Amino acid sequence: MPVLKFEMTHRDPGSSARRGTIYTDHGIVETPIFMPVGTVGSVKAVSQQQLQHDVQAEIILGNTYHLYLRPGTEVLEAAGGLHRFMGWNKPILTDSGGYQVFSLAANRKLTEEGALFQSHIDGSKHLFTAENVMDIQRSIGADIIMAFDECPPYPSDYGYAKKSMELTHRWVDRCIARLDDTPDLYGYTQNLFPIVQGSTFPDLRKASCDYISSRGAAGNAIGGLSVGEPESMMYELTALCCENLPVEKPRYLMGVGTPWNILENIALGIDMFDCVMPTRNGRNGMLFTSQGVINIDNKKWEKDFSPIDEGIGSGISAYYSKAYLRHLVKSKEILGLTIASVHNLAFYLWLVREARAHIVAGDYFSWKNEMIPLLKTRL
Amino acid sequence: MPVLKFEMTHRDPGSSARRGTIYTDHGIVETPIFMPVGTVGSVKAVSQQQLQHDVQAEIILGNTYHLYLRPGTEVLEAAGGLHRFMGWNKPILTDSGGYQVFSLAANRKLTEEGALFQSHIDGSKHLFTAENVMDIQRSIGADIIMAFDECPPYPSDYGYAKKSMELTHRWVDRCIARLDDTPDLYGYTQNLFPIVQGSTFPDLRKASCDYISSRGAAGNAIGGLSVGEPESMMYELTALCCENLPVEKPRYLMGVGTPWNILENIALGIDMFDCVMPTRNGRNGMLFTSQGVINIDNKKWEKDFSPIDEGIGSGISAYYSKAYLRHLVKSKEILGLTIASVHNLAFYLWLVREARAHIVAGDYFSWKNEMIPLLKTRL
Repeated sequence: MPVLKFEMTHRDPGSSARRGTIYTDHGIVETPIFMPVGTVGSVKAVSQQQLQHDVQAEIILGNTYHLYLRPGTEVLEAAGGLHRFMGWNKPILTDSGGYQVFSLAANRKLTEEGALFQSHIDGSKHLFTAENVMDIQRSIGADIIMAFDECPPYPSDYGYAKKSMELTHRWVDRCIARLDDTPDLYGYTQNLFPIVQGSTFPDLRKASCDYISSRGAAGNAIGGLSVGEPESMMYELTALCCENLPVEKPRYLMGVGTPWNILENIALGIDMFDCVMPTRNGRNGMLFTSQGVINIDNKKWEKDFSPIDEGIGSGISAYYSKAYLRHLVKSKEILGLTIASVHNLAFYLWLVREARAHIVAGDYFSWKNEMIPLLKTRL
Repeated sequence: MPVLKFEMTHRDPGSSARRGTIYTDHGIVETPIFMPVGTVGSVKAVSQQQLQHDVQAEIILGNTYHLYLRPGTEVLEAAGGLHRFMGWNKPILTDSGGYQVFSLAANRKLTEEGALFQSHIDGSKHLFTAENVMDIQRSIGADIIMAFDECPPYPSDYGYAKKSMELTHRWVDRCIARLDDTPDLYGYTQNLFPIVQGSTFPDLRKASCDYISSRGAAGNAIGGLSVGEPESMMYELTALCCENLPVEKPRYLMGVGTPWNILENIALGIDMFDCVMPTRNGRNGMLFTSQGVINIDNKKWEKDFSPIDEGIGSGISAYYSKAYLRHLVKSKEILGLTIASVHNLAFYLWLVREARAHIVAGDYFSWKNEMIPLLKTRL
């Protein structure tokens, strides 16, 4: 079977930023890319129509933990996979569920075998293993499936971080073996991305990169960052990982981050991002715009009838005014959650499209340094 | 200034149903029509784009009580009226706020002058009068504005109902006088519809119709029905009112109702409807479809991957499956509220379009009698 192909077309002369294309059986993804998070088969408050036309998403993420608990693999298999279940025909990536087990589930217990936990919904007991997490992701039918890993908390001591990394490495091999033994379920290829761990320790990160690289996967991910460590530490570790992961494979930095985090990490060689920040912060009235950050709750927007953000390619961001969105948010109207979420995601997708154009133009580094103070401005 | 024009083009030979067109300065409304309720400047959980393309709404309703409290007339005037504030270029009708004062506000007190009440949001004290309710509706800028009235509860005794009706009649004259004294604010015409009251007493209803008709308004409304009385009583009183209101003016039955209520009342001569039922029940998982009523929470829909409802002209109703919507509702995803609300409203608009076609074809009465048992079927 053909596997996911990555074609790198441009490299920025002033940084390690790259411009590429990922080919999947559900179409292409231009990189650098941001992936909206569709937790339980829905990008929160956003319709698939808005996702396609306003956000202009190219690939979305699903959470294995959530989808396994609800609607469950039986329903997803009966539907013919998540793409058909939710009506999303473009690529999907699923995480491995490990992160959610340790952030959401109750009474979790880590063993060599896997992670025991109780559902946050009904308290029922479940076991995630390297093997069954591959089976679940087969049932979901994502184009890119993530290896089962443990994400150590920040800070972790060296001994714990090393043991955790080694466990993640053993799990990677079990994931690969399981996928080799099981077929794609829906007639298209599913591609495994293993995950680099190693907490905040450069030697562990390098060792993990070496091990993960040696697995020869179609793409590689960096996990365990943006979990509370200082930004400068995240950038140093990302840079180290990018230097030690294959240049010809896409690199995915998991769970990152702010608009400026994304621009900085693109400069370090990252191709793929996901984060709940645009939707979660949007639901709390925080808007990222091409002019800076807006707290829409603020009275200064009460009579500002200018569009939320024009020129980012989102009809919804150009259609509704700041004053109207503020009114919806103050009145706790559901449409306010939708507009804010659609806008923030559209802004993130606009930002990576801009980044691509500047990599192609060869001025990414200077553009990024001009943009970051602007994006951080509190309006 | 030109006032709202109503052109009746067809009458059903087997009933009192009529097919017509209302001309406003924001475009035409085909009748019979259902008006989605956009309480506080938003049809709950539905975007203006979905309202136009999926629901195919021709006119929406705004609540004066809610809009007065939030965002307030100062913001609405600064925006140039509600149409511009919310981005809705088609006709808008506003109620007078009386009904909400008596169903939502605290410590309300009715006097000859008007209604004293405390805001349900912050407890602040306010007075609604026939005059200031006209001023508020001027500020909102609705194409059709409703007279200030009192809606007596069900049941009411004869003495109370008569006094309440007489008060409503005195208020109508104050509304008319106030509108005569004040200009349209935004360059288009605002048209007053007075409201027939009289509770469940036929002689009072007839007297109210006579009084209201004599005011010579561009259209007339029937209030105080669907407030708990038996359906048969509602139909009798609606029939009586239709017989006693001018045939050449549109008739609006306020706050009604189920799909079958709407078909029955069209047969009696009603042209306009509004109701929160499609959105409110939708948010609770109850779907009205062309095949009958669905409780989407029911396990029978878990693996039903057929569309919610095809052939009603709503892309969203045809795109998403029952199983997916059930999953969203069970998972408390915001998108579930949106899909259910859009679908139910689209169904109501489809239903009145079908009704129009059957009035034109001359078989409305027999079509209505076939449809009602189908629409009531519990699937």
